[in-house]
Parts: sequence; C-alpha cells; structure tokens
Amino acid sequence: MNTLAAYTQHLHEMNILSSALSLIGWDQETHMPPRGIGFRSQVMGRLTKNLFELTVSPELGTLLEQLEADDSLSLEQKASVRDIGKQYRRRKAIPPALIEEQAETQSQAQAAWAEARKKSDFSIFEPLLVQMVDYARTFADYFGYEDHPYDGLLEEYEPGMTVTKLQGIIGPLREQLVPFLKQLMEEGTAPDTSPICGHFDVPTQRILARRALETVLYDFDAGALDDVAHPFSTAIAFDDVRVTNRYLEDHITSGLFGALHEGGHALYGQGMPEELYQLRLSGGASNGMHESQSRTIENQLGRSLPFWKHFQPILAEVFPQFRDVSPEALYAAVNEVTPSFIRVEADEVTYNLHIMLRAELEAELVAGELQVKDLPGRWNQAMEEYLGITPPNDALGVLQDVHWSVGYYGYFPSYMLGNLYASQLAVQTWVDIPDLDEQIASGNIKALIDWLIENVHRVGGVYQPDELMRRVTGEPLDSSHFVRYVKTKYSEIYGLS
Amino acid sequence: MNTLAAYTQHLHEMNILSSALSLIGWDQETHMPPRGIGFRSQVMGRLTKNLFELTVSPELGTLLEQLEADDSLSLEQKASVRDIGKQYRRRKAIPPALIEEQAETQSQAQAAWAEARKKSDFSIFEPLLVQMVDYARTFADYFGYEDHPYDGLLEEYEPGMTVTKLQGIIGPLREQLVPFLKQLMEEGTAPDTSPICGHFDVPTQRILARRALETVLYDFDAGALDDVAHPFSTAIAFDDVRVTNRYLEDHITSGLFGALHEGGHALYGQGMPEELYQLRLSGGASNGMHESQSRTIENQLGRSLPFWKHFQPILAEVFPQFRDVSPEALYAAVNEVTPSFIRVEADEVTYNLHIMLRAELEAELVAGELQVKDLPGRWNQAMEEYLGITPPNDALGVLQDVHWSVGYYGYFPSYMLGNLYASQLAVQTWVDIPDLDEQIASGNIKALIDWLIENVHRVGGVYQPDELMRRVTGEPLDSSHFVRYVKTKYSEIYGLS
Repeated sequence: MNTLAAYTQHLHEMNILSSALSLIGWDQETHMPPRGIGFRSQVMGRLTKNLFELTVSPELGTLLEQLEADDSLSLEQKASVRDIGKQYRRRKAIPPALIEEQAETQSQAQAAWAEARKKSDFSIFEPLLVQMVDYARTFADYFGYEDHPYDGLLEEYEPGMTVTKLQGIIGPLREQLVPFLKQLMEEGTAPDTSPICGHFDVPTQRILARRALETVLYDFDAGALDDVAHPFSTAIAFDDVRVTNRYLEDHITSGLFGALHEGGHALYGQGMPEELYQLRLSGGASNGMHESQSRTIENQLGRSLPFWKHFQPILAEVFPQFRDVSPEALYAAVNEVTPSFIRVEADEVTYNLHIMLRAELEAELVAGELQVKDLPGRWNQAMEEYLGITPPNDALGVLQDVHWSVGYYGYFPSYMLGNLYASQLAVQTWVDIPDLDEQIASGNIKALIDWLIENVHRVGGVYQPDELMRRVTGEPLDSSHFVRYVKTKYSEIYGLS
Repeated sequence: MNTLAAYTQHLHEMNILSSALSLIGWDQETHMPPRGIGFRSQVMGRLTKNLFELTVSPELGTLLEQLEADDSLSLEQKASVRDIGKQYRRRKAIPPALIEEQAETQSQAQAAWAEARKKSDFSIFEPLLVQMVDYARTFADYFGYEDHPYDGLLEEYEPGMTVTKLQGIIGPLREQLVPFLKQLMEEGTAPDTSPICGHFDVPTQRILARRALETVLYDFDAGALDDVAHPFSTAIAFDDVRVTNRYLEDHITSGLFGALHEGGHALYGQGMPEELYQLRLSGGASNGMHESQSRTIENQLGRSLPFWKHFQPILAEVFPQFRDVSPEALYAAVNEVTPSFIRVEADEVTYNLHIMLRAELEAELVAGELQVKDLPGRWNQAMEEYLGITPPNDALGVLQDVHWSVGYYGYFPSYMLGNLYASQLAVQTWVDIPDLDEQIASGNIKALIDWLIENVHRVGGVYQPDELMRRVTGEPLDSSHFVRYVKTKYSEIYGLS
C-alpha cells in the first residue's frame, strides 16, 4: 500500500471510531435511560482511548512525515495532513501521565463546580479551579507559543488566533458596544414583546422547530431532531448530522431559535462533500467559523424582517394565535435587548460583551496575571463596566459556565468570533445577491443556503479561518461589520435618531 | 494477571464492542436518517469484525483451555467458559474464506428474496436458496453433529436440541392441535371482536404501550420505548434494555401485544445481575427460553382474564371508548383463533403449527431429503394438512419469512419451544402461587414478575434450557402442558362442550 492509501486507511479507522463515539454521545443525551450511564461510561472511555491511540500512533507519525514532504498532494490532502499533523503533535506533546492526572482532576472539578453553582459558593470550586488553571498553563507550555501562553490554547479552537489579535478585535468592539448599549437602554424604546408572550405546548413547539428547520433547508433525510436538556448538533457521519433541541412552555423563542442555531451548525456539516469527511476536514475551518454558521441561521436570517415576512404564515399555521400578528411585530418582539447576567440568554448586542469579559479573564488567569481568588471580584467589576449590572451572587456570575471546570480554556472567544464572522459574511451575501432580502421574504431561503454551501460549507476545513475570510470577503476579519450591523438594526428597532 | 482476570478482561473488551454494536443496531432501526446507512454499514461491519476477532482470538483459546481444566471456578464462571468455549470452537470451525463467501451470497440472497416476495415469484429466490441451503449443510458438517446435520444448526439457538427430540415434541403436539383447531373452527363460536374494532390514533397508542409496559413492571429507568418498522428488544447494557414497537391505526392489539411481547424479552434482560452480563451469560438460556419470556408476558399474562380485570380501567383511561367494555368481553375479543397464511399474525392455537411446518421442511432441506424446487409444493401441502388452508401465492406462503435468506437455519423451532416453555412455567407459577390469578386481577403483577426473576431471569444463561426446566418445574420440557392450556382456554372461549 502506498503512503497516501495507508494514511487514508488510518483516517478511515479514526472515522469509524469517531462515528461510533458521536452516536454514543448523542444517545447519552437523548435516549439513554438514567441507569444506562454506568456501563456506557466504560464503553465511551474505552473507545475514546482507542481513538486517542490512533491519533498519536507511531505509524501515523511516519506517514505524516512522508506526506508533509510530498508536493503531489491535492489541496484537500495537504489540508488534511496539516490538521492531522498538528493534532498529532499537540496530543503527543503532553506526557500521558499528565493527561491522565488532568482527567482525574477534571472530573472532580466538574463535580465541585456543579455543587458550587448550586450553592452559589465559589469557595467550593476555587481550589480545583486553581489546579485546572495550572494544568491549562502547563499544557500551553507543552503546546508552545510565541508571545502569550493563552495563544497555545487558542490554537486548539481557532487556528492562527492570538492574544494580540484578540485584543485588536476586542478593543474597538468594546469601545463601540458599551456606549451603544447604554444609549439603547437610556434613549431607546424597547420593542413590544407581548406578541410572543403566552403558553405554548411542547408537542406543537416540536412541530414548529421541524417546520423552521425545513424552512432553512435542513435535510431530514440526512439528519434527525430530538429532545435534550442542553441542545447541540452532532455529525454522526457525513450523511447523518443531527440536531437536538429543548422547549420551554412559556418561551416560544427558546425552542425556535435553538432549532435554528443548531440547524445552522448542522447545515455546515450537511453541506460538506464526503471526501472532506474521509480526510477528517469536516469539522469546519474552526470553532468560530462553525459558530458563524449557527449565528447566520439564527440571527442574520432568523432574527431578520425578511425571514419573518416568510415565516409568519408558517408560525400561524402551527400556532393559530399568531394569525393576526404582523411580521413587523414579530421581528421587533424577537429582537429585544436586555443586559442580563447569563451569557446563554444574551441578545445580539450584549452577547459579545459577555465573551470579551471571559476571554480577558481567562487569558490573565493562564498568564498568572490574575489569581483565582480574585476572579469573582474581577468578574463582577467587568460586568458592571460592560453591561452596567452586577450579579447578585456567583451562581449568576462567575460560576455560570461549565467551560473552566472541564478544561476548555481558549474556547470562549469562538462564540464572539462566530458573531463577527457571521456579520462580515452577511455583508458579502448582499454584495453577491443584491436582492437577497426580497428573495428571503418571498420564501427563497435557498438563495442564502446555496451561497453558504458554495462559499463556506463545501470547503469544510480546507482553509484556515483567516484565509477563508479573505477568500470569501476579500479581507481579514473586521469587527466593524458587526458594529455597523447591530447599530443599524437596533437603532431602528429602538427608535434612536 | 492471572488467567481468570485475563479472561474477564477479554470478555469486557467483547462487551464494550457488543454494547456499541447493539446501540448502533438499535439506532439504525429507530432514529438513523435514510441517508445515514452508507457510512453506518462501514462502522457496523468494522466493529463486527473486531468483535469476531476477539471471539476467535488465539489468546482466548489459551485462556479457555486453562479455565476448562480449572475446578475452582464458580458455577457462573463455569457456565461462561462453557458458552464462550462453544462459541470459540463453532466460529473457528468454519474456514474464514467460507464465512466471507457465505456472507456475500447472503446479501444477494436477501435482495433476491425481497424481490421474489414482492413479485410473489419463487423462481427469483430459488437459485440463491439452493446456495444458502448448501452453506447451511456445509456449516453443519463443520460444526459437527451425531445423528442429523440439522442438529449441528439447532445447537446455535437451542443448546441440546436435536431432530430426534424435536420430533418427539412435534409429533404428539400436531396430533392434538390439528384436530382441535378443526373442532374449534367447525363446532365453536368465535368470540365477538367488535369491542376492539375501531380507529386508534398512534400517539395515544404509544401512551397505551407505555402504560402496558409499566403495568408489567418494565423499568423505564433502565430502558426506553421507540417506534420501529419491525419490533424487537435489545440489551445495550445490563441496565439499558430497550423495547421498540409499531402501531397500526386500525388494530389496537398489534401495538399493545407487540409492546407486551418485546417487554417480556426486555424483562428477561433487566432481571439479570450485572455479573452475568460481565460473563456474557445475559443472552439467556437459549433463544427458546428468551421467547418463553416474551410469550409469558404477551400470552400467559396479557391474553388472560385476570390481566384484563386489572388492565381494562387503564385501557379505558387512555382510550375512553372502552369505559363500558367489560374485561370478559375484552378477554374474548383478544383471543380470536383464525387459521391464516402469515406466521407473525398467528394466534396461540395456530402459531405452533406454522413453526412445525417450517422446522420439518428446513430439517429435510439441510439433510438433502427435500429439494429446493419442491419446497413451495410441500409448503402448500403442509399448510392444507395443518391449518386447512392453501396459500393463494408464494408471497403468502413459502416466501413470507426472512430467515432462510439470511442463513438462520435452526432458528424457527425457538418460537415453538418458547410457547411450550411458557406454558410449562405457567403451570409452575400456579403451583408456587396458588392465588396468582386473584393477585393479577387485583393488580399485583409483581407476584408473577418476581417469580420469573427468581426462577428464570436471575440465572440468565447459567443453565442450559433443559436443565433450567428441570430445576424450575421438576421435569424436562413436556408439550402436554401447552396442549392442556390451549384446549382448556379456547374450548371455553369458543363454547365447546
């Protein structure tokens, strides 16, 4: 077998395990009975170990070495070797004993975090957080970085991203958003949300979520929609990309925008050719780029007036009480801005402020510039500064997210980058399709989805995010698109002059 | 590591793969989208191969050799070594090239069978059936047998069963059942089935199936109920034993008794201790014994008058149109006897006749006493003889079952044995719990379930079926219990003097 065939076969073995693990993970959150968790954890642990072994196997190392010197590879093959090689080196960089040690601490940290959040008592989590931050710093050292240890962690989620670049994005963004939010709250008139108030039974909401996914051309022949406590989407294979969702009886928007958000992620997976899956490039360009696809569907499309012009009759078909509510009224109602304590409930204007705060604090933690004991105070101070509110307790503040307890340091910025990418891509869609608004309003959502497939989905993880943005929009990431977007949209909704 | 620990570890590895495969199989029938099948087949094929390799690994062979000579093993460990050793030898008996060859033919045979059934044209299936029968005969030779090649195949599904024993069971059974069925049809008065006629919406039927499973103490904390085209139950792990079901809008009994049937299988799995799962003894004593547990819940319990005394109010709660239908009327209605062409629709009286016919024909096929070309004629002749009806075409006759196209030769008798075991076990329950009928009628289904757990479930596959029957009922399998059961029950329902 030649080197390339052996490499492809190796990736196939990894894909077999990845697919089984994705299904197992999906089932665990959707259908597995409570008592099934005992043996399930053993199955999960064992297959994860098998996959890890394939990720760092010496045979793979040899193949990578040969392929990295091979100029005859296709663009896609080169991209695959680039990503698999990077993963190989990063996974091998950490001594196995340390990985095991960290995994044990992590399971304690997650339990401590859950208890701390429940009791709103940071001191329960504090000593374990200290350890988790230490591991993050140690891992960063093993991974290597040029300027800042946080760079070594960012690379995992957003290739090419650094603290310096992040600061260049966050700074101007904050300078614009903080005063704009203040202005909205003080001078603006909040939209009337009464049209979407009410009690909405869950089975009918499930139908609505299905209709919404059909509307955005999510392919149910290559996917499924299931109930879950914490929504996610997952690619079990290239032709099996599932959405999960949850429904709140008193908040119809939660299940609707949840479905659109996860549907956006799933469309990314469904839009990729099988070849990229086989080359393990189907995870997308980065976490941030993945988030941009969910935000495009949820916000750029789902919270736009053209969308509601098309979707209002569908909504009214499922819930007849909306028959006499205008698209304009629905558009305004789903776009209320409220500075709130909880990130996952944040609107388009405040969401990025929640993220900046986390990104800054975790970079400082990893660099040792901020001590864990000082974290709650700094958190509350930043909340006041950015959002003008102070959490009444740590459960509604520093303890709200799971990320730090499970070791996801460097992940948070993806959420913000997703919003920024989405705005910049949206500008380009209107350049390429000048009458896109009219098309969407008249029900031709396909115009947008085809554009996303052609420009973003189809190439999967072939290009790094920065390169992809340049190719599609002609320029690197520029947060001014986002600022213009929210300022224009919300000034109008809030009646600012 | 000592031998026993190494053996246990080896079984654990097999259990990991079995559990993943069970979940993958379950998902494939329940939630997987249509286009997911492509990569899924590859995942399934690869993990199945991995499991097969563990089943016949030389390391396992060495461990088995040592453990087979080890007198210090517990009863359960000895049973495990017995079964795993038998599986090891049977799987190793067939040359790998032949297994592969048969698998290829099988996939063609299954496709040909599906087409033949659709067009009701036996000639499409005939040449492939000839090949499949040849493989079955060759496999039997490799497995080895004493008297009859079919014995070598029966051993796979019902340890210890032979053609001679089967003939000893079938002969007297047929002598009783054939004239009794004739008498029922000619002299009896069929029960009024109008109480269960009607249109029943599927979502409500799902609720009814759930209530029925709760009634028989199926544990939803260690299980799940999902929709499927062809119902089955599956043990994904010892604490995760799932039921699948389907619903016909115009036949409420289909979904109800389907749930009870699969629930009976699942209760067997839920009633076993974790230790037996770890020793891979949780498949039960045999296929026939597994079927006995589904038949106990579906028929001995579910089609009994005491059950309907308890269940009628539950049914009426879910479907209010049953509020004024008496338990007696429901009991009669669900016990109609109709000689019909299709096995899976057969009632308690005719079911075993369908099986005898198949068992006799497949034993003759494997022995070379019956040629495939003569099969349809022999089938129709036997149908006339046993059930008094002749199939109008082969789709309703010899082409109705999937078994022969997928190589399940020796499987059919399990269905009949299940019915016979169930009747014999039922007699013993009434010996051990004299007021069982009253207890069931007053809602104490637990009395029966506890008896099943204590006597059958708890010991899983520790005993061979014959030994288990002797231990629980004091005698080997005796089909006269079944004959007495149907004669008494149906003479009364059909008003025979």
